[in-house]
Parts: sequence; C-alpha cells; structure tokens
Amino acid sequence: MVNETQHTCSASSSSKSDGGSSSGSESSKDSSRCSTPVLDADRHERLREKMRRRQDSGDKWFSLEFFPPRTANAAVNLISRFDRMGAGGPLFIDVTWHPAGDPGSDKETSSMIIANTAVNYCGLETILHMTCCNQTKDDITGHLQKAKRLGLKNIMALRGDPVGEEWEEEVDGFNYAVDLVKHIRNEFDDYFDICVAGYPKGHPEAESYEADLRHLKEKVFAGADFIITQLFFRPETFLKFVKDCQAIGITCPIIPGIFPIQGYHSLRQLVKLSKLEVPQEIKDVIEPIKDNDAAIRNYGVELAVSMCRELLDSGMVHGLHFYTLNREVATTEVLKRLGIWKEDPRRPLPWAVSAHPKRRVEDVRPIFWASRPKSYIYRTQEWDDFPNGRWGNSSSPAFGELKDYYLFYLKSKSPREELLKMWGEELTGEESVFEVFTCYITGEPNKNGHKVTCMPWNDDPLATETNLLKEQLEKVNRRGILTINSQPNINGKPSTDPIVGWGPSGGYVFQKAYLEFFTSSEIVTALLKVLKKYELRVNYHIVNVKGQNITNAPDLQPNAVTWGIFPGREIIQPTVVDPVSFLSWKDEAFALWIEQWAKLYEEESPSRMIIQYIHDNYYLVNLVDNDFPLENCLWQVVDDTFELLN
Amino acid sequence: MVNETQHTCSASSSSKSDGGSSSGSESSKDSSRCSTPVLDADRHERLREKMRRRQDSGDKWFSLEFFPPRTANAAVNLISRFDRMGAGGPLFIDVTWHPAGDPGSDKETSSMIIANTAVNYCGLETILHMTCCNQTKDDITGHLQKAKRLGLKNIMALRGDPVGEEWEEEVDGFNYAVDLVKHIRNEFDDYFDICVAGYPKGHPEAESYEADLRHLKEKVFAGADFIITQLFFRPETFLKFVKDCQAIGITCPIIPGIFPIQGYHSLRQLVKLSKLEVPQEIKDVIEPIKDNDAAIRNYGVELAVSMCRELLDSGMVHGLHFYTLNREVATTEVLKRLGIWKEDPRRPLPWAVSAHPKRRVEDVRPIFWASRPKSYIYRTQEWDDFPNGRWGNSSSPAFGELKDYYLFYLKSKSPREELLKMWGEELTGEESVFEVFTCYITGEPNKNGHKVTCMPWNDDPLATETNLLKEQLEKVNRRGILTINSQPNINGKPSTDPIVGWGPSGGYVFQKAYLEFFTSSEIVTALLKVLKKYELRVNYHIVNVKGQNITNAPDLQPNAVTWGIFPGREIIQPTVVDPVSFLSWKDEAFALWIEQWAKLYEEESPSRMIIQYIHDNYYLVNLVDNDFPLENCLWQVVDDTFELLN
Repeated sequence: MVNETQHTCSASSSSKSDGGSSSGSESSKDSSRCSTPVLDADRHERLREKMRRRQDSGDKWFSLEFFPPRTANAAVNLISRFDRMGAGGPLFIDVTWHPAGDPGSDKETSSMIIANTAVNYCGLETILHMTCCNQTKDDITGHLQKAKRLGLKNIMALRGDPVGEEWEEEVDGFNYAVDLVKHIRNEFDDYFDICVAGYPKGHPEAESYEADLRHLKEKVFAGADFIITQLFFRPETFLKFVKDCQAIGITCPIIPGIFPIQGYHSLRQLVKLSKLEVPQEIKDVIEPIKDNDAAIRNYGVELAVSMCRELLDSGMVHGLHFYTLNREVATTEVLKRLGIWKEDPRRPLPWAVSAHPKRRVEDVRPIFWASRPKSYIYRTQEWDDFPNGRWGNSSSPAFGELKDYYLFYLKSKSPREELLKMWGEELTGEESVFEVFTCYITGEPNKNGHKVTCMPWNDDPLATETNLLKEQLEKVNRRGILTINSQPNINGKPSTDPIVGWGPSGGYVFQKAYLEFFTSSEIVTALLKVLKKYELRVNYHIVNVKGQNITNAPDLQPNAVTWGIFPGREIIQPTVVDPVSFLSWKDEAFALWIEQWAKLYEEESPSRMIIQYIHDNYYLVNLVDNDFPLENCLWQVVDDTFELLN
Repeated sequence: MVNETQHTCSASSSSKSDGGSSSGSESSKDSSRCSTPVLDADRHERLREKMRRRQDSGDKWFSLEFFPPRTANAAVNLISRFDRMGAGGPLFIDVTWHPAGDPGSDKETSSMIIANTAVNYCGLETILHMTCCNQTKDDITGHLQKAKRLGLKNIMALRGDPVGEEWEEEVDGFNYAVDLVKHIRNEFDDYFDICVAGYPKGHPEAESYEADLRHLKEKVFAGADFIITQLFFRPETFLKFVKDCQAIGITCPIIPGIFPIQGYHSLRQLVKLSKLEVPQEIKDVIEPIKDNDAAIRNYGVELAVSMCRELLDSGMVHGLHFYTLNREVATTEVLKRLGIWKEDPRRPLPWAVSAHPKRRVEDVRPIFWASRPKSYIYRTQEWDDFPNGRWGNSSSPAFGELKDYYLFYLKSKSPREELLKMWGEELTGEESVFEVFTCYITGEPNKNGHKVTCMPWNDDPLATETNLLKEQLEKVNRRGILTINSQPNINGKPSTDPIVGWGPSGGYVFQKAYLEFFTSSEIVTALLKVLKKYELRVNYHIVNVKGQNITNAPDLQPNAVTWGIFPGREIIQPTVVDPVSFLSWKDEAFALWIEQWAKLYEEESPSRMIIQYIHDNYYLVNLVDNDFPLENCLWQVVDDTFELLN
C-alpha cells in the first residue's frame, strides 16, 4: 500500500494546538469539530471512544435513563420523548431491564424493542441493561445475540435482584455482574461496550464499602469500559468514591448518576428500592411541602443543578447520567440551566441518521420519506448495504412492504377523535379535502375551529423550512394541488444556517426546488402540456395508484436535490429524487389516504367514498427545478397550468 | 425487484416527440443529448449501439482509419495525432493489421499496442483490424484474448492477403473473413462488435459482383454488426451497392469508405493495391497537375466534399469512414467543410476519459495528474475497480510504479536540444530555474529568445483555464513559488462555459481554487505560520522528497475541488485532492526534476547540481481554498508569506 510515509503533523494535533488561540466562547467545541467533524466521528466511533474524545476536548456531556413502558400507547409516547430529548444532544440513553416484564421479547414494550427503536428509529446511541441472576447461559447468549442483530452496541451488565427473599449462589451460574461481564467478553469478544454499576455508598448487600470497591474493580478488570453510579444526594459522596476507586487502580470513566427529585412519592419509592438514606437536610425541606408537586420539583431541580455544578467544577466529572423516570420536564430544566443541553441547529445531515452500525456510512436517501423517516428505516431494515456518496443506479435493493400502518413507531400521536376534528367529521366533496390541506399549511383553524396539526403524510406541523414557501403552498392547495412535500431552492447558504443548514461548519449547502403533490387527472393533463415548455429545466414524475407512470428523467437516473460542499471533504448529497424508489413510495403515499384517512369513516359513507375517489383517481406528482441559482420556476409551472385550464 | 411498473412515456420518446418543435440549428443534436446525455451514453454503449443511436437521432458521424507506424518516434507523433483528431469527435478510429509487421506483439509500433493506446490513453472507441489467412486458430484466439484483455471491444474481421502469388484454400483453416467472424462469435460470444469489409465494385478476386454480395451476406449472417466499404470514386457506385445489399437481405449499417486524394503517388499506390480503376474524369484532372502536391490535395478535398455531400443527401448514409493515410490536413478539411467535425468544448468530464470498458464508471480522479492523464492511466491500469461518485477512503488501491519515464505515450514531443533551449543550456542558480517557470507562464521568450512551451510536469502550453490566473502565477513564480498545477475558483458557471464547462448542458460547474508548487524550505516555514490564520478555510499538504508530510486534512479525507450539478442526475465530482494519492504523486513529481530536467546535463555539471539541489531540498505544496464563493484567498496566503519573510 501507498501509505508508508510518516505524517509528522496530523490534522487533530494541528487543530488542537491551535485550539487555545482561537477566539469565541465555543472555541473548544469548534476545535473538536474541526479535527473530527460530527459528520463522521459521531457515526464511526464506539461509545467509549466518543466518551474519551469528549473528555479530551473538555466538552461536558449528559446521558438519560429510561425504563420500558407498560402499554403500547405509552411506548408511542416514549418514542416521541426520545425524539424530543434526543434533540438536546445526550451522549447516550439507556433502557432498563426487568426480568419480570419479558424484557428480551418482541413486544412493543420490551426493553429490547424499546432500545432497538431508540437506536434505529431515533438515531440515539443506546445502552441496553441486562441482568443475569437466575438466568441460563443460553438465555443470556440469546439476548445478546438478538441485541447485536438489532444493532445494539452497548450493554449495562447487572446482577439483578434475586427472586425471593433469600439469595443463594448458584454453582456455575451467573451470580454476580462480573460473571456477565466475563461472559460477554468470552462470547462476543470486543463487540459490545460494557458498562457496570458503581455504588458510591457501597452496595447495600456488600460486606463493606471496601469489599464493594474490590467487586467493582473485578468487574472493570473483567472487561467493563466504564461505570455509572447509583444515585446519591451529596456531591462529596461521589467525589470520595471516585478517589477511592482510583486509589485501588480503577482508571475507567466513572459517571455520576443524577436523580432530580420530582415528587414525594417517587422519591420514597426509589429510596426504598435502592436502600439509600435521604439526608436530613433534604427531608427537612421536602416533608413540609410533600403535597405540592410543583414546589418539590422546583426544589429538586435546584438541588440537582447545584450538585451537578459542584461535580463539574471539581474537574473530576465530564458527563452526567440522569435518572429521568421517563419524565421530561425536570431533567431538561436541569440540563438547560447547566448549559449542557445543546439543541444544535446544525444537523449532521438534513435527515435524522439511524445509529445502527450497518447504517454508519449511509448518507443518501430519497426525498419522498422526508416526513416519514421511521417508515423509511423500517422499509430498508433488511438492506445489507446503504448508499454512500451516490444513490446509485435503478437496480437498488427492494423496499420492504409496509403492511402494518400502525407499527407503533409510525403510529399517529393523535387519537381518532382528534383526527376527525382536524380532517373533517363529514366531507362534502373534494373541496373539503382541499381545505384540510390548506389549513395544515396556513396553521389557521378549519371552519369548525380546529387547527390541522398533522396530515396522513406528516405527523408533525409544517417544518420551518417549508414555512419559507407557505404563501405559495396555500395558494396552490386551495386549488387542488394537494402538497405533501416541498423544499425551496438554496444556492449556497452557509452550512450553519439555522433553517436550512446541516453538516460541519465552514461549508455551503444547496438545494433544488422540489414540490410533491396529489392532483386530479384534469390538472395533470394541463400540467403535462405546460411542462413541455420547461424541458431540461424541470424533471417530473407523475404516477397514479395503478402505477401508470410518466417521467422525463434521463435513463431513470436519480436527481440530487440537496447537497453540501465542506472544507476538506468530498461532496455530500443526502437527498435525491429517485424514479425507482418513487414507485415504492407511491404505494405508501396512496395507501395513507385509505389507512389513515378513509378508515376514520364508516364504510360506504360519503366521506369515505370521497377519499376513496381521490385515492383511485388522483395522480401523485413530483417536480424538480434543476436551475437552483435562478428563482424557483415551479410556482410558475402551476400558474401556467391553471391558466391553461381556464 | 421494485420496477415492475410500465413506463408509459420514457425519457427518450418524450424528447424525441419534442425534437421537431424545438428551434435552433442544432436541435437534433440537442434533443439526442437531452434524452441520453453524453456523460453516460457514450461511455456505456457499445459501438453498434452508438451507431444505432446516431442513426435514430439523425446525427451524422465520421470515423478515421490509421495504419501502425514504422518507428517509435512515428508512434509518438501518431498518438499526438489521435489526440488532435479525436478532438473533432470521430465515432471511432480503426487501426490496420499487417501480418508482416508483427501486429499482435508488444512493440510500441504494433497494431495491437497502437489500438491499445488509442483506447486507453486517448479515450477513443477503436476497431482493431485482424486478418486470418495463413494463421492458426490458436494464434487468432491468442490475439483476440490479448485484445480483450487490453480493453479493445471491436474487431474488423478480414481475410488478408495470401502469401505468395497463388492462393490455395486450407482445409479446416481460415480461408475467408467469414471463418474469422464465426470463430470470434464461437469463442467470444457477443463480446466483440464485428465489422466486415464490403466491396462496392465487388472483390477483385470474386467470381462476380453477385457472388461477392452473397459472400458479404454470409459474413453478416455469421455475426458481423456492420460493414465498411472499400474506397470508391463515384457516389452512385456506393448507393447502388447499398441497394443491392438490401435487396438480398443485408440490413446492417453499411459505411462508405472515403479516400480524399492527397497526392499523385499515394493514389497510384492505393489503386494498385486495391485493383480499382480511377475514373477517366479524375485522371484528366490529376495528370496535368501531378507534380503539384498542393493542387492535387485541394482537388482531392473538393472531390471528397462533393461526394460526401451527395452521399449524406441521399438519406442512405449516416456516417462516413475516412482512409486518412495517417495524415491530418485533408481529412480534417473535408470534415470541417461538411460540418461534421465537431470540436465540442463540452467535455463529458474535466479530464479526458479512457475508453477501456473497465473504466466505464470512472468519474473521479486526483487533481495531481491533471496535466499527465496518460501517466495516471498507466499507473492505475492494474486496478479492477475505478472510483465512481466518491474517491473513497484512504485505503484505495496502490498506484503502479512509474519506472519508465520514457514510455512512448508519455514521451515529450520535444527533442533534447529543444528542451535545453527552453530550460537553459546552462543554469546559474535557483533563480534561473525560477525564470524558466516564469517564461512558461507568461509565454514570453527566455533571455536566449526561446519560448518555453512545455515543462517536465506539463508537455503542453498553459491551459486556457490556467490563463485566467496568469498574472498572479507570473508574480509568484518569479519569487520562487514554482507552480505546476492550479485552477481558479468557480461558483456555478454554466456547464456549457467554453473555458471551464464540462458535462451535459443545462448544468452548473463549480471549483475550489487550487495551487500546487515546489518551493524552498525557508518559504515553507513562513507559509506554515501564515496558514494558521487560514485554518478551516485553506487545506494544505506539504511534502518533501523524503516523504516528510505536513497536512491539516481532516482524517486524511479527500477534498472535492471540481464538481457539477446537472438536470436529473446525481452530483458529479470529477477531481479531488486526495492526501494519500498525493504521496504517490510526489514521487513522480520529484522524479521528473531528475529524469526530465537534470539528466539533460552532464553528471557533476553545475546545472545538474542545481536541479539536484532543488529535488533534494524543496517541498511540494498543495493548497485548496474551501471558500469557493468568495474571492480566491490563495494569492493572499502567498503575499502574506513573502511579507513575513521580509
């Protein structure tokens, strides 16, 4: 190979030596981005490497612990919470494991499936807890194999609570967490990053604090990569623990577990389970206000913030682990006040990346699923290779069927009654459908006074970027151009632009204007005549539910519609309009009319028949204006079409 | 797979139906480009498909026949002629085969190697002639295998001239061209496109014209794809021949062989060999002017143009095949007057593509070899896969050693004496080297009155694009920044721009400013200090002959410096600055000082020692300004460096 030469001055070392001299409050953050830009490092490193890099760069970080939900509905909510709390930039989340709850099963609510969803669909680095006592080797190995298959890369190895009152050691069984650590390293070599639990006050069942420290050292020496501690109430408890660990030779990262007190009862329950004692000074504050939830939470936030500050100021703490109890408010508040909640407008790519290792290189997707990224991930989950750099030619792998429109991570957050209020209890004609689309765009309430905050093709309100096109979108939707996806043209905005920016800083992003909509065959006929005038400039694909397809795409090649140019890198083109994928997307796009909208109404009802008519007769159209440096001509195309019709 | 849907209206049919309505003189050309843009079609189609597409689109084409040269020097000249005549856009060239001249050998002058060079190094679609009589099956198969291995895809199957006066049929041997056609199809299936010869007046040895037509039909039915005819003197001869062929069921393309008369003696010799008779009306013109070469050539051009016009006007002719006799002037003149010489400023990529089938998808190269594309092709000839879309990561395949700097297709067109006049009979110091570089840039004569039209790193005068930077380049070369490669920044010029454009029309091309030069360690020290101010904006690689390497490239990733955005396609980024390839390039770049320059002088001579000193002590530097939308900052970087030095 060619690369035998020494690199006397590597990128990271040069950047680092410069770090101190650069100005601005976020210099350390920026310099770490410069040498190892988000785009790659975050996707290519394993958790322990990310942790080390953050420690080296001085960037403080946090992580979030959740437990698996009890019901499918709660699971849907938890996934939304993952998305919202993921926006703050946790280094990882972790999902607990309760042997009684069938945690390794395929149920929507199992620890395994929740962790899978967090990794694959929410793009979060995730640690799956796993306990070992009272389990066979085969069971454990099966769980680990499944975790690996699903793309999970990190395990929190725990003993778990014994069954029954008295715990007895099993010969050749898993008796301690260290047995699980050894087993993982034996069976899976270095595949998993392993975390173990530390007890700042000693494990309640340990002979002594010192004996517990020795057990912890055993776990680390058996192959654990880092330690997360049990909660504690005083910073000095943790700092002493870290020093004691170091004194006996434990050198891996030790992450303090932070428990913001959120209510009187949850605190009592936790204390009971963990066998910890609440310090008197805390009891003194809480007891008098025990019936005032808000007051307790405010106090809990205050307490957590001051403890975290002390920990961070000690210089011994680089990351904080939060026991969220699946709640958002208190933890988010603490993180924001600490200044480590970093809602970074700079996305690494315009779409949310998945954290599955096999998707590490993925950096191109068809634009069609822009508002349904989880559906895209689901339908491509069987792929072995993901597009990198180019989408490639039309012989790309097939998309999986989307049989279950109620897949829990695709399920609408809104219940049926709410959808009916938004989309109409009773439709009177195609125009009432036009009105629903128009209200979704404008954000104005419909004639019954309800805002339309989601659509079958988009479970969220209009994206900020789409807002740039609001006026024109409103105009065309009123006339029966029922838009479901669009983007403005962008001619070289900085990659740090708060609305359209993505990727590492110092770059420039570009877009071709895109418009995708359903419309009647009458409008399509006129549109096709108009499009002749725009040959070369506008690429189009027009398809109906039967698959009759009209396009001017040369050789059915993909058209890149979003791309970015960055310092020291190859071009990145994360979204394309791919003619072949469009035919898979159209099945989904048409089915959503029926599955999400028509089925809200009784069979044979006029409302249902209206939606069915649109489904059967409308066309799905996408248009790309290739002349991105000029003013977007797609509105002119639509205007010309209506003019021709009149 | 997903693509089961009918495409009721494909790209090409929609474009074609529009073709008639579009205005402008080149509408047919443009519409064929729209539906099947140069970028792909020309590289992916086989010759017979290209021919069919040109016939369908109505685009007239031409092809050029050459014979292998006698000497290595003549070979170098022929290769230059390929490059020059290739610029006119021949559909293919063909290389004749003379059994006496060892045509299948590895000699620089063999038919095989000349055809190989045309395909691989000049990027020309090429037909290799092959004769079969008096040859064994194994010989023939060996030649064909070698041709295939070298990337040749087309064979002109001929009988060849018998040895001795009387020809006897060999039992089980190759007696007729049809035997060779059958053999190729038997042994190589459909790999080769096969051409056969047609005789508008009948083969001189055939029993009759009709019998010869039947032989031709046999050749076609045995698997030939098209026919090129022997030369003829009257258009009606050819047109009758085509009709007679069609009458007996020959439907493949029949291409007229055109022989522009270029001199009295060459005509006489050709007539003798081909046993054709020159019509009296031509003889009447030529005989009186037989000693006036210019007059005969003018007459020959005139005659050829009028015959070609008649052929093209007949509607039965789509392409013209020229017997060039390895000369340029007459054929080029005819082609230009016919308007089918199309010197298209629109290159499919910024560099000349190779026509080897395995390089079909290649569309990314390091910028370093921009002026030495043949060296790049040579050094990557063993690769099995070529970069498409992305250059990829640093673990790319190794570059072959460039051991022989006098490889005939890399050999300088200028002899030693001329190089000495340009680069100095005697050097007096580093400054006299600076002067050579400066004169090359300015185009002004050196102090001995000689223009410097080539350099060791560039065998041609300055590129038009580089001229845009002339003033600044002159300034820095005078001061010892010895530039060997550069490009200006381009922020979205039309792809049809005559200077910097490339790729299909309707697109936009971009460049990051690039500067590559040799310079002293003193300047490098100052430069490195200056570059700290430009972190993120400027990427640099600085290396000396020993391989000491300084760079700020993030993770040694490639930096795309040329890219294009086109209608209906993915992004194309044909040139990158790749840190790993740069280390292979630097070996070549440094070696050229010695091999091409130092060795012009006696060993131990002061001139040679000056070049040797530069080779041993200078650094090779490349700089990229990542902020392509802003004014190129690299000149400022150089200015700052000199300021720091003063």
